[in-house]
Amino acid sequence: MSQKRSDDVEKQPLPWRERWYEIIFEADTPAGKLFDVLLLIAILLSVFVVMLESVSSVYQANKNLIDGTEWFFTILFTIEYVARIVSARRPFRYIFSFYGVVDILSILPTYLTLLVLFDFEVDTLTRLTVVRALRLLRVFRVFKLTHMLSEATALRQAIWASRAKVAVFITFVVIAVVIVGSAMHLIEGQNNPGFKSIPQSMYWAIVTMTTVGYGDTAPTTITGKTVASFMMILGYCFIIIPTGIVSAELSQAVRNKVTTQVCPECMAEGHDLDATHCKYCGARL
Amino acid sequence: MSQKRSDDVEKQPLPWRERWYEIIFEADTPAGKLFDVLLLIAILLSVFVVMLESVSSVYQANKNLIDGTEWFFTILFTIEYVARIVSARRPFRYIFSFYGVVDILSILPTYLTLLVLFDFEVDTLTRLTVVRALRLLRVFRVFKLTHMLSEATALRQAIWASRAKVAVFITFVVIAVVIVGSAMHLIEGQNNPGFKSIPQSMYWAIVTMTTVGYGDTAPTTITGKTVASFMMILGYCFIIIPTGIVSAELSQAVRNKVTTQVCPECMAEGHDLDATHCKYCGARL
Amino acid sequence: MSQKRSDDVEKQPLPWRERWYEIIFEADTPAGKLFDVLLLIAILLSVFVVMLESVSSVYQANKNLIDGTEWFFTILFTIEYVARIVSARRPFRYIFSFYGVVDILSILPTYLTLLVLFDFEVDTLTRLTVVRALRLLRVFRVFKLTHMLSEATALRQAIWASRAKVAVFITFVVIAVVIVGSAMHLIEGQNNPGFKSIPQSMYWAIVTMTTVGYGDTAPTTITGKTVASFMMILGYCFIIIPTGIVSAELSQAVRNKVTTQVCPECMAEGHDLDATHCKYCGARL
Amino acid sequence: MSQKRSDDVEKQPLPWRERWYEIIFEADTPAGKLFDVLLLIAILLSVFVVMLESVSSVYQANKNLIDGTEWFFTILFTIEYVARIVSARRPFRYIFSFYGVVDILSILPTYLTLLVLFDFEVDTLTRLTVVRALRLLRVFRVFKLTHMLSEATALRQAIWASRAKVAVFITFVVIAVVIVGSAMHLIEGQNNPGFKSIPQSMYWAIVTMTTVGYGDTAPTTITGKTVASFMMILGYCFIIIPTGIVSAELSQAVRNKVTTQVCPECMAEGHDLDATHCKYCGARL
Repeated sequence: MSQKRSDDVEKQPLPWRERWYEIIFEADTPAGKLFDVLLLIAILLSVFVVMLESVSSVYQANKNLIDGTEWFFTILFTIEYVARIVSARRPFRYIFSFYGVVDILSILPTYLTLLVLFDFEVDTLTRLTVVRALRLLRVFRVFKLTHMLSEATALRQAIWASRAKVAVFITFVVIAVVIVGSAMHLIEGQNNPGFKSIPQSMYWAIVTMTTVGYGDTAPTTITGKTVASFMMILGYCFIIIPTGIVSAELSQAVRNKVTTQVCPECMAEGHDLDATHCKYCGARL
Repeated sequence: MSQKRSDDVEKQPLPWRERWYEIIFEADTPAGKLFDVLLLIAILLSVFVVMLESVSSVYQANKNLIDGTEWFFTILFTIEYVARIVSARRPFRYIFSFYGVVDILSILPTYLTLLVLFDFEVDTLTRLTVVRALRLLRVFRVFKLTHMLSEATALRQAIWASRAKVAVFITFVVIAVVIVGSAMHLIEGQNNPGFKSIPQSMYWAIVTMTTVGYGDTAPTTITGKTVASFMMILGYCFIIIPTGIVSAELSQAVRNKVTTQVCPECMAEGHDLDATHCKYCGARL
Repeated sequence: MSQKRSDDVEKQPLPWRERWYEIIFEADTPAGKLFDVLLLIAILLSVFVVMLESVSSVYQANKNLIDGTEWFFTILFTIEYVARIVSARRPFRYIFSFYGVVDILSILPTYLTLLVLFDFEVDTLTRLTVVRALRLLRVFRVFKLTHMLSEATALRQAIWASRAKVAVFITFVVIAVVIVGSAMHLIEGQNNPGFKSIPQSMYWAIVTMTTVGYGDTAPTTITGKTVASFMMILGYCFIIIPTGIVSAELSQAVRNKVTTQVCPECMAEGHDLDATHCKYCGARL
Repeated sequence: MSQKRSDDVEKQPLPWRERWYEIIFEADTPAGKLFDVLLLIAILLSVFVVMLESVSSVYQANKNLIDGTEWFFTILFTIEYVARIVSARRPFRYIFSFYGVVDILSILPTYLTLLVLFDFEVDTLTRLTVVRALRLLRVFRVFKLTHMLSEATALRQAIWASRAKVAVFITFVVIAVVIVGSAMHLIEGQNNPGFKSIPQSMYWAIVTMTTVGYGDTAPTTITGKTVASFMMILGYCFIIIPTGIVSAELSQAVRNKVTTQVCPECMAEGHDLDATHCKYCGARL
């Protein structure tokens, strides 16, 4: 992404655009911080309204209020979206970035609902189902919260760095789930409806191995309970190993925050970032 | 808090006040240790009595004994509170500190119960409800246990140091809960009463993601079970990442235990345990 | 395994065999990568078909398609197995290796099913049960996934390195389960069918201690609930200790990543990254 | 325990006693290893028999076999106990050690059962209850497994080293359980029988906070579900913090396995245990 795209020339920084950019995209100035806090409140309130809407008793009693609030937030986020495009230094890059897609997905469903209600030539039931699904898409607004997270970078890097190990871990979990699921289908499948097919047994195996344990499906035979017991202890041990691996990996990452400087006199390494003299021989670094 | 407040002048340390202070606030002397142990027993017993009181069969059978014990502990803690104010070097600072507020909250409810019972002009039922709520406030006495915890400081610092990362973690959990909750409402909402509204689906999502898994609500459709399975494995991986982060952070903190040595030349502190020269000016330590 | 077995002489690397070896056993060349990806898809699809087969409604509706796909994959994996034997440098070593056994187990059940159906002189029901068990053996194909995991080595080493500690941990879990299971049998056994015998109580103890908590068995008496509460908190603390141990062990392993430098004088290896002199003979590295 | 007790003089090491000591108490010689393995098998078998005995259908069908096996193991462990006393260098120290108490507890119950059956002047029912409780005491044999665990020392030290932090952690858990339990009693207590008293609510809080989640008690009101949700997320975060602390503590312990030697020339510390020269300046240590 370091190369400019031909259709995305960096715009001349006009004074007002520069000011908007600072307010909307940055959080260093008081105005930028205020914008972020107001946006945070707007996101949380709008997600809360979408939730309330799904509680039919609440929606029936406050139909107008909820619909009005919904439109208020949609127009607010539309203004925010336009302002972001106008003030962004490279509008197209913003539009096609993760945040840009999240921002458009936060406002589009409400407008689409309108289209569906008035234009489509479909029967009422289908229309309502589509509207219902579209309305729920608005909870994607919750992703706008990620705008707020500067710390998320560290977490994302940590997850990314341990992706290979997590993949191995998940592969082992999948293998265990398939094998135990099939075994339990063979053992319990005759009499216990929860183990009637392998996919159902695998669902039980996942519920058990992650220690969720709903209890809607549980082994009833002695053999089944014995196999389940071994699987639980296995699952319990399983969580320890990858936790240790990630922890060790991260410890290493944190520790390696030393300069690569070598003392010119005694050649010692591992100096702190703020050191100006070798801590072993006292020579100037 | 290093500046003195005008209304909180440090009192002249009278001999008896100094002695009381040592007994009540410190735990270095035998008398101070004895006071702490007796207080610990009193707290545990009084919380135990509050609990017993809520078991109606036990309360009916031992009404007088339980009420008497309750008043005994209330008066005991009142005496302790007064003694703390009298002996504290800066009484007002104590009163408005966390421990001071906890101490007053431990005795107030019993006296308020008295007021409610005799003075208020309300009907019996409301009065009883208020009394019931006030009585329960007395379990706040359990917070008095924190007086005992000198080790708590380390734990509090650890939590405080990782607050940003824990906040990011919780934000991701909230986003996952909102998205999965809405998706499950769409998938299961028609037939399964446990997913009738988004808040109810979110409750299920939290119960599942934290691996509690009551089983009072569980998906019944194939799609629902599949989505739930992915969510469980996601939740299982989720707990690994932040555990690793906190662990790495703390490892770093423990390792960075530095000497308390001060450089004789530049007065800099924070030298590594293996440093022989000041890392800022190069002087021999 | 560094010694050659008399019946397993290393074959002369013929050009076509060498090429096959690269494609089938390695993943460095584009052809080798393609082979691996195609194999991965075949494994996942074939396991998916075995699962579908166990869902009776799906199997009834698509009997021919599923049986056909099954034979297609069996023949495909047979070809793969033969190709591996032909191209392997030491065929016998491959055949008796973990992967060789997994590969033969992936194809054998389908052929055995055929034998059972036509040759054995047994009644229909027994025959069907045997066939059913054999068919399920095919899910062992999922183990073929481990072919893909080069990263698995690190995980296997980590588990191997902490085997003694994990064994101690499991021993403590077993002791706790036996003791608590017996105690709960004594406390709850009279009235609660879930604690009727020690093995049943132990099943409950495992379900509880691993925090799975189905809820199909739960204590009902006050004493039982109290003992169960202590056991849960114990189990909660239990998971912390071994996680810490494994984590510390692995941190050490990661940190001890040493240079590959060899001392020019005494040929010693394993020098720290920050070493400038051989720590055994003092020669400059 | 480093001082000799007057009644526990160290015995002259007779040749046969020395030999027995090696076999029974140590595991270095082949005979000692064999003894340990045979003992391990005997312990596991005898615990298995105790368990089988509790399954009434199995016991009814194999009464004589089970009772016979029981007496066989009791006599075997009696011989072992006597042999340990005879061969121990300081018999009294062994008798009053943890292992000595465990060993006597493993055999005593069977003999006591005999006494109860024939001698006591009590009615049949009481006698049977006492016998039942005594029989179960025999599962304490499982503690004899700890004889086998040399690795247990490391685990015990780790737990001991983090006892203060685990205590703080448990105190916080207790405070949270008391507060949330009381709050839920107030919110749900009116209609939900599972929250009828504070102890019952606390039982629910422990089941929830440790993520066991039986589901026998679950909140039904909206307020209750909201409070429960917050508590679950709190519990989820809770497990992260102490895991990190223990992990960091242990990392430190593992890492500190360096000599306290200082290089006589450059004063550098932190040399490996196997180093003979300073790794910074090459001087002989």
